[in-house]
Amino acid sequence: MTIISSLSNPKIKEAVKLREGKYRRRSKKFIIDGIRELDRALQAGIRILEIFTVHPSIPYNDTIPYKNTVIRQVTEPVFRKIAYGDHEDGIVAVAEEPVLTFDLFEAKISQKSNPLLAVIEKISKPGNLGAVFRSADAAGFDGVMIADLHLDPFHYNSIRSSLGTVFHVPMVNAPSAEICRWLKEKQFQIAAAWCSGNTIPYTAVDFCQPTAIVLGSEAEGLSEIWNGNGITGITLPMRGIADSLNISVAAGILFYEARRQRGH
Amino acid sequence: MTIISSLSNPKIKEAVKLREGKYRRRSKKFIIDGIRELDRALQAGIRILEIFTVHPSIPYNDTIPYKNTVIRQVTEPVFRKIAYGDHEDGIVAVAEEPVLTFDLFEAKISQKSNPLLAVIEKISKPGNLGAVFRSADAAGFDGVMIADLHLDPFHYNSIRSSLGTVFHVPMVNAPSAEICRWLKEKQFQIAAAWCSGNTIPYTAVDFCQPTAIVLGSEAEGLSEIWNGNGITGITLPMRGIADSLNISVAAGILFYEARRQRGH
Repeated sequence: MTIISSLSNPKIKEAVKLREGKYRRRSKKFIIDGIRELDRALQAGIRILEIFTVHPSIPYNDTIPYKNTVIRQVTEPVFRKIAYGDHEDGIVAVAEEPVLTFDLFEAKISQKSNPLLAVIEKISKPGNLGAVFRSADAAGFDGVMIADLHLDPFHYNSIRSSLGTVFHVPMVNAPSAEICRWLKEKQFQIAAAWCSGNTIPYTAVDFCQPTAIVLGSEAEGLSEIWNGNGITGITLPMRGIADSLNISVAAGILFYEARRQRGH
Repeated sequence: MTIISSLSNPKIKEAVKLREGKYRRRSKKFIIDGIRELDRALQAGIRILEIFTVHPSIPYNDTIPYKNTVIRQVTEPVFRKIAYGDHEDGIVAVAEEPVLTFDLFEAKISQKSNPLLAVIEKISKPGNLGAVFRSADAAGFDGVMIADLHLDPFHYNSIRSSLGTVFHVPMVNAPSAEICRWLKEKQFQIAAAWCSGNTIPYTAVDFCQPTAIVLGSEAEGLSEIWNGNGITGITLPMRGIADSLNISVAAGILFYEARRQRGH
């Protein structure tokens, strides 16, 4: 294997460019940092196009199929150029963006009995989105619906903070109105987290029926779509001086309460 | 008021140096970024030594006393040099490190009936420490005990991610063995979160008695001090592919379960 040592190698330049949202979205490719995240992408059937590594061979689980994947060894300086944050693993991959349609999501959810879904509206930090996926995965939620997204679910920070669970939990990305309509049509209980207004404590909700838990952005809260007929406003008591919880913490508390009521 | 415009002004140089842990600890001062955080520090009785601001006057709540505080207006470039991250507030303060003794902590806790405490061991990221404080504040916990700390509770990232609640929740910083001995002496139920071993589900714990919930670092888990006689090992079910939750999420779930059992 030839070792790439030039920062001006076109493959390296492209990998660097994939950190930019605009280029990433146009090219329909994204970057995965780290072995664990790459592992989880592969397990979820994400197509890996290229792997850049400082190692002469890939230092992990060789039961995972790498068909159609080009593995390129690079020098340390080149790796530092394409890697992000802690990069002790010495691995960065370029992956093909999966196609996420509502039909595909619906097909996956329809196989579940008594599903639990999370809806996340207008979240603006990729790290927070990833952290909600991590909480949804841990609580065994059946899907995450991303409403009116301001950002990219395959942003490298989203992937990292999700620990790669963003590949694993079924996901759909659609306008809030469409998601709300679909949930009502499918007769989900919709429990929307509001800080104030007409709400009940989250512990008073019966989570034993098919339920979607709706969370808004930290800055803006939820849009009015999640208010009114067919929606149960729920609230998390805040007993201190701060008036909000981090969205992934609020998600964790609500998701685990749903699980607790169902006997895990 | 003279506007400081020179980056080599000694006051500015000192403020910049206070981002360094070593200098910070030696000087017993620390930096607070942002109005909300400064507000909460003042409310908690933290002594503010200096305020640097781009504004000609301080643009907030003038009911808060600023006695003994020097307010220095600085130019935008000087402010950018001393500020960190998002700095839309245009305010950075230098504060005096409060003295935190075990006696002081004990005095505060002894005033509470049926207290709930959090113990955090060997946490290594300031942002995670701050996030645990935010969860403890929201759940109305009575104190946070920091065991075998690898870092500084008044690190600027800890303050920021706590939203300033780090000033509000009673805190002590001591070796794990000392904290464990104290909890046993005071007859706290000790519920230590373990990923495996001899544990019961967290929902099977009776949190209605005085309880300390013990959480370890994400990388290392807990030390053996938190195992054995007088300790209840507890576990959070993990239903997905990832094997852990972010520590502030795990903290939020456990703290809110304790509150739920007590009827909030």
